[in-house]
Amino acid sequence: MQNTNLLVVSAHAADFVWRAGGTMAKYAKGGANVSLVILSYGVRGESNDLWNVEGQTSDNVKRIRRAEIEEAAGHLGVEQMEIWDFDDYHMQITEERLNRLTAHIRKVKPHHIISHGPKDAFNPDHETVSKYVFDASVLSTSNGVRIEGTTTAKQARLFGFEPHQSEISNFKPDVIIDITDVYDRKQAAMNCFKAQGHLIEYYGGKAMLRGNHARRCSGNGAYKYAEAFSRFFPYVGGELV
Amino acid sequence: MQNTNLLVVSAHAADFVWRAGGTMAKYAKGGANVSLVILSYGVRGESNDLWNVEGQTSDNVKRIRRAEIEEAAGHLGVEQMEIWDFDDYHMQITEERLNRLTAHIRKVKPHHIISHGPKDAFNPDHETVSKYVFDASVLSTSNGVRIEGTTTAKQARLFGFEPHQSEISNFKPDVIIDITDVYDRKQAAMNCFKAQGHLIEYYGGKAMLRGNHARRCSGNGAYKYAEAFSRFFPYVGGELV
Amino acid sequence: MQNTNLLVVSAHAADFVWRAGGTMAKYAKGGANVSLVILSYGVRGESNDLWNVEGQTSDNVKRIRRAEIEEAAGHLGVEQMEIWDFDDYHMQITEERLNRLTAHIRKVKPHHIISHGPKDAFNPDHETVSKYVFDASVLSTSNGVRIEGTTTAKQARLFGFEPHQSEISNFKPDVIIDITDVYDRKQAAMNCFKAQGHLIEYYGGKAMLRGNHARRCSGNGAYKYAEAFSRFFPYVGGELV
Amino acid sequence: MQNTNLLVVSAHAADFVWRAGGTMAKYAKGGANVSLVILSYGVRGESNDLWNVEGQTSDNVKRIRRAEIEEAAGHLGVEQMEIWDFDDYHMQITEERLNRLTAHIRKVKPHHIISHGPKDAFNPDHETVSKYVFDASVLSTSNGVRIEGTTTAKQARLFGFEPHQSEISNFKPDVIIDITDVYDRKQAAMNCFKAQGHLIEYYGGKAMLRGNHARRCSGNGAYKYAEAFSRFFPYVGGELV
Amino acid sequence: MQNTNLLVVSAHAADFVWRAGGTMAKYAKGGANVSLVILSYGVRGESNDLWNVEGQTSDNVKRIRRAEIEEAAGHLGVEQMEIWDFDDYHMQITEERLNRLTAHIRKVKPHHIISHGPKDAFNPDHETVSKYVFDASVLSTSNGVRIEGTTTAKQARLFGFEPHQSEISNFKPDVIIDITDVYDRKQAAMNCFKAQGHLIEYYGGKAMLRGNHARRCSGNGAYKYAEAFSRFFPYVGGELV
Amino acid sequence: MQNTNLLVVSAHAADFVWRAGGTMAKYAKGGANVSLVILSYGVRGESNDLWNVEGQTSDNVKRIRRAEIEEAAGHLGVEQMEIWDFDDYHMQITEERLNRLTAHIRKVKPHHIISHGPKDAFNPDHETVSKYVFDASVLSTSNGVRIEGTTTAKQARLFGFEPHQSEISNFKPDVIIDITDVYDRKQAAMNCFKAQGHLIEYYGGKAMLRGNHARRCSGNGAYKYAEAFSRFFPYVGGELV
Repeated sequence: MQNTNLLVVSAHAADFVWRAGGTMAKYAKGGANVSLVILSYGVRGESNDLWNVEGQTSDNVKRIRRAEIEEAAGHLGVEQMEIWDFDDYHMQITEERLNRLTAHIRKVKPHHIISHGPKDAFNPDHETVSKYVFDASVLSTSNGVRIEGTTTAKQARLFGFEPHQSEISNFKPDVIIDITDVYDRKQAAMNCFKAQGHLIEYYGGKAMLRGNHARRCSGNGAYKYAEAFSRFFPYVGGELV
Repeated sequence: MQNTNLLVVSAHAADFVWRAGGTMAKYAKGGANVSLVILSYGVRGESNDLWNVEGQTSDNVKRIRRAEIEEAAGHLGVEQMEIWDFDDYHMQITEERLNRLTAHIRKVKPHHIISHGPKDAFNPDHETVSKYVFDASVLSTSNGVRIEGTTTAKQARLFGFEPHQSEISNFKPDVIIDITDVYDRKQAAMNCFKAQGHLIEYYGGKAMLRGNHARRCSGNGAYKYAEAFSRFFPYVGGELV
Repeated sequence: MQNTNLLVVSAHAADFVWRAGGTMAKYAKGGANVSLVILSYGVRGESNDLWNVEGQTSDNVKRIRRAEIEEAAGHLGVEQMEIWDFDDYHMQITEERLNRLTAHIRKVKPHHIISHGPKDAFNPDHETVSKYVFDASVLSTSNGVRIEGTTTAKQARLFGFEPHQSEISNFKPDVIIDITDVYDRKQAAMNCFKAQGHLIEYYGGKAMLRGNHARRCSGNGAYKYAEAFSRFFPYVGGELV
Repeated sequence: MQNTNLLVVSAHAADFVWRAGGTMAKYAKGGANVSLVILSYGVRGESNDLWNVEGQTSDNVKRIRRAEIEEAAGHLGVEQMEIWDFDDYHMQITEERLNRLTAHIRKVKPHHIISHGPKDAFNPDHETVSKYVFDASVLSTSNGVRIEGTTTAKQARLFGFEPHQSEISNFKPDVIIDITDVYDRKQAAMNCFKAQGHLIEYYGGKAMLRGNHARRCSGNGAYKYAEAFSRFFPYVGGELV
Repeated sequence: MQNTNLLVVSAHAADFVWRAGGTMAKYAKGGANVSLVILSYGVRGESNDLWNVEGQTSDNVKRIRRAEIEEAAGHLGVEQMEIWDFDDYHMQITEERLNRLTAHIRKVKPHHIISHGPKDAFNPDHETVSKYVFDASVLSTSNGVRIEGTTTAKQARLFGFEPHQSEISNFKPDVIIDITDVYDRKQAAMNCFKAQGHLIEYYGGKAMLRGNHARRCSGNGAYKYAEAFSRFFPYVGGELV
Repeated sequence: MQNTNLLVVSAHAADFVWRAGGTMAKYAKGGANVSLVILSYGVRGESNDLWNVEGQTSDNVKRIRRAEIEEAAGHLGVEQMEIWDFDDYHMQITEERLNRLTAHIRKVKPHHIISHGPKDAFNPDHETVSKYVFDASVLSTSNGVRIEGTTTAKQARLFGFEPHQSEISNFKPDVIIDITDVYDRKQAAMNCFKAQGHLIEYYGGKAMLRGNHARRCSGNGAYKYAEAFSRFFPYVGGELV
């Protein structure tokens, strides 16, 4: 994984941890450059517990979430992180924002991008971000899209996070990544979001279930924990993978 | 690809050439063990031109097709080949035939199996064979399925050929294999089936189109010819492929 | 649930426990008549661990599995159980077997039938049984299907088990049943199948995940454990459920 | 429609009337050769009312249904009709039956075949017949399928009846045929099946609804009654239809 | 149904009558609080007949449609109704409008919301409204979405109307509601829209067809008229419904 | 085809040539009025090669592309053409633009409209245009949509271009048009876009493949080249096409 650039784009503060934390840690451990863009702090849509505190303010929620994000990203080995502080619930994409992400992709030149898949049965922001990342990735490859100070990128491989309720979001696991050897890092990162204990339990269970699927699909008994992703378009290469 | 066992199961005489000949040649060139089971000579369903010859007989059709198969398999580097001589159009699977393929898989212990995908809008045999191969691959892994002289296999990765009319057969390319460096071998193999000139032209065109898709999906301009396959279940492993 | 007849049809020995044990216990506790047909002992396809024992025989596997089944069914409150001892892997349905199940449905007159859904990405028997149960349920309602000693049944509601790998089996949860108050019984039943420890862990995780989904879909925080089912045809009645 | 051969294959006695009676009448009126194969009398699955008569026998049901069929076919202008008297509920296709239909297609040389579509949420026979007709139509075109006294047919266009519950049977209307000018004939044919009054009302309602759809899709206000069909494969020709 | 809050959101003037009038009447009769939001008068898209009158004006169309709506809502037992007077054809959703509906849901606290489903093959407004209602229902549950004077709602069950051409709009009936005992009220409400006689006939036919489906799915012969809805996410509860 | 109005709406400069050039030429040859709206020059998204030239400007790209378009349209027999010069990559639809296309459709009164289908796996503009054309076609038929100087149109038949990567764009060929007798004109038109040699080869291959499909679906050996389209809603008429 040396010299591989992996870019993760997360709609809200913690999406990347629950859904791709193990894969990020695995790539970081393997020597890849793992970078992260977090589009919003999830102030409105993903901070229910914080708002139960008397006198809560938007700024204070952001402060708390930033601390959580930074700690979690550290556990996963993220090299470079940006928080773009869009409003969430619901998120809106403007031409300026599309240009910004397009330029960012051209700068990072990722081999792989992981972000939200096209459908999420309970989260309209995730669907918005999925299209946002797809559009920007396509624009990033076209040299008629002139953005000062950038050069075109090659088409990145796009992968979709597993949504929270997979089946009713039309999610199919196309790629299951074994995260057994870095699962402790994912756990450490998940534990940074203490206010969301039910999600720590939930995504712990998911990792175990996907590990079971990994064993059944491959016959390889060493897989204990795994994460699943969808693909946006086919694998291309020289081997039957 | 050293030490990789690739098994191809072809319903009729030439299916393997049109749809996977390049990938077979690539694996053979890379040092894999490529083996082939051809279930029928395609006497009834895929030998239209031969039957236009006055006085044609079933035995003669088989003789001609065997010669074509053997020559084509040679071009592709097939190490081991069996022709099981089932009747085609339409093909029927019995318990005995299911056991035979199960036992064969246990003997070959393939890492990958390529055969027909679950739907083919114009060929009922291809659908029958798809289920046949899937069932046998599942049975081959279960040690309660007792077959004298065999031991269980690990679950093989299953890949589906591209059917002739892909869209109306619900085919999605999950894996596109670059065959640029072995395309001459595929051409040589296709040319063994001289009576089917329209198919030689057709699958030449397909290889060029899939090469175009390979370039667009990857940004890699070196891909000129390619073959597409569907997957039966997710990729499992350590990298985002 | 008084006066409700619930029939569960299980392809192999333990399918009913993992996938519907909680719902069966809930109905039994609520006063319903819960009955069970187990089509096979799962000797060939679902007894891998037992066959690892030196000198194992088919009869001995059946003996062990029967004891497990009976103990588990007891925990769940099953009133009436039959084991039909079909061969599995793969299972075959004859006219005689279709008549037998049709007659059984006419005798039991179930309001609800739970069995396997139409697709299972790794288990051909489950697909066979799904069609078997559907066909028999349709035949059971037609009074031109003359079977000595039976009278026609009303069309039962048909529900499909959640398959082991739900997404690649095209499973959508249509109905999620809260099993929180009977979860101890499901656990007790699962623990009867000690040789399959990985499944006990797996389906424990599943129940927790489905409980999370139940809370999110309903806003009802009391749901902790749940089971999911597909429907074969629409709900009909007087309320928006 | 002069010189057009239209073949309709009906699983049970009355399927052709409810689902294609208007189109058959339209083609007959337009000068086409309309022929009909009825595979079963529907004794077991589609004669519920008759079996409510004390002392009913299978032979008597067949006698009554034959009279209804013949009268209805007369109203629709059917030129040639065969009843093959297979058992229904459920129907089974043997090699001999496949050969028989293949030979029949070769004899009739239909330009269009109308029969059951691939899925019917409540009628397993309809699914069986759909595959039966498709398989035979494919075999009929292959000159390696040697059947004494027959010559190969061109691939017929295949159309699927609208199933009784369209949406849950995955039916999409691909072709909507205006039957306004022959609707009286369809009504006359439907009225031959007096014992099934609820179906006469039902398919009268359907014809009116499809007429509404026909107006909306085309902007042509003259369409009052219509029938819908699915296609098995694409339209091919010289105009955008 | 006592203490149940049912909210219906209708894109245009009469959508609620054709598609959910019977269910609304049933709930009203059963003691539920039935409330209604009508987003537009359908001036541009659903008042073709009125615009055929010489000298017609937008204000006059609104006046006429308001009278029809009020009379129809009276027949159905609607307790509280608002007309928001958005422009239609095509309708646009702003942040302000999203907040307005979110706040309304928080005020009404509906157990069930019925509105348009996600796809309508001939009506872009219906698709816009479907997403609008879904988004607002999600936002209404999140306590980070701060709207003065409101408190969060529990997630409502969301149901989709049957679109006019169901199959090509990917509609599946998940829930079929028996409206036999209130069908006279639905008829009275439909008759308020005299200018649309073809729709009165059409949706009368639909109610009869769905009644037939209700009988077939349940075996309950008492169902004569029914309405069908899709679900946005699974049923959750304690019984197999 | 006399008196038939065919309107083609192309997102970028050359889309119409690759995907519908043969059908346009066929209609023009048959005496139809073929008109064309090109929404953008494809400056940003489809002129990669031109931007590789040192000192390239947007105006110069437009100049070059206009010359290519005009020459190609001449070969195909287009009678009336407009270039609306929207920005591409990505294209945005405003109310003003929606009105403009609605008015244009009312002026042209097309029997058939060919444009982009609803999904394109690599081109967000194509999806935008698909919805744009659909929306405008619906609005054009509603006489409540008051646009000065226009009268309502009848609902046109809508057809979708084949997207570049058909399967991953969910494209199904519903209609395959034989273009054998005008293929030389399509070739001449394609050759106007010399800078895109790989597309000339690609769409030449496609035409040959679709010709093969046309032969197989119809049994008509005269078809050599063809183009495929999807339909937006069912065919309505008097014959089984």
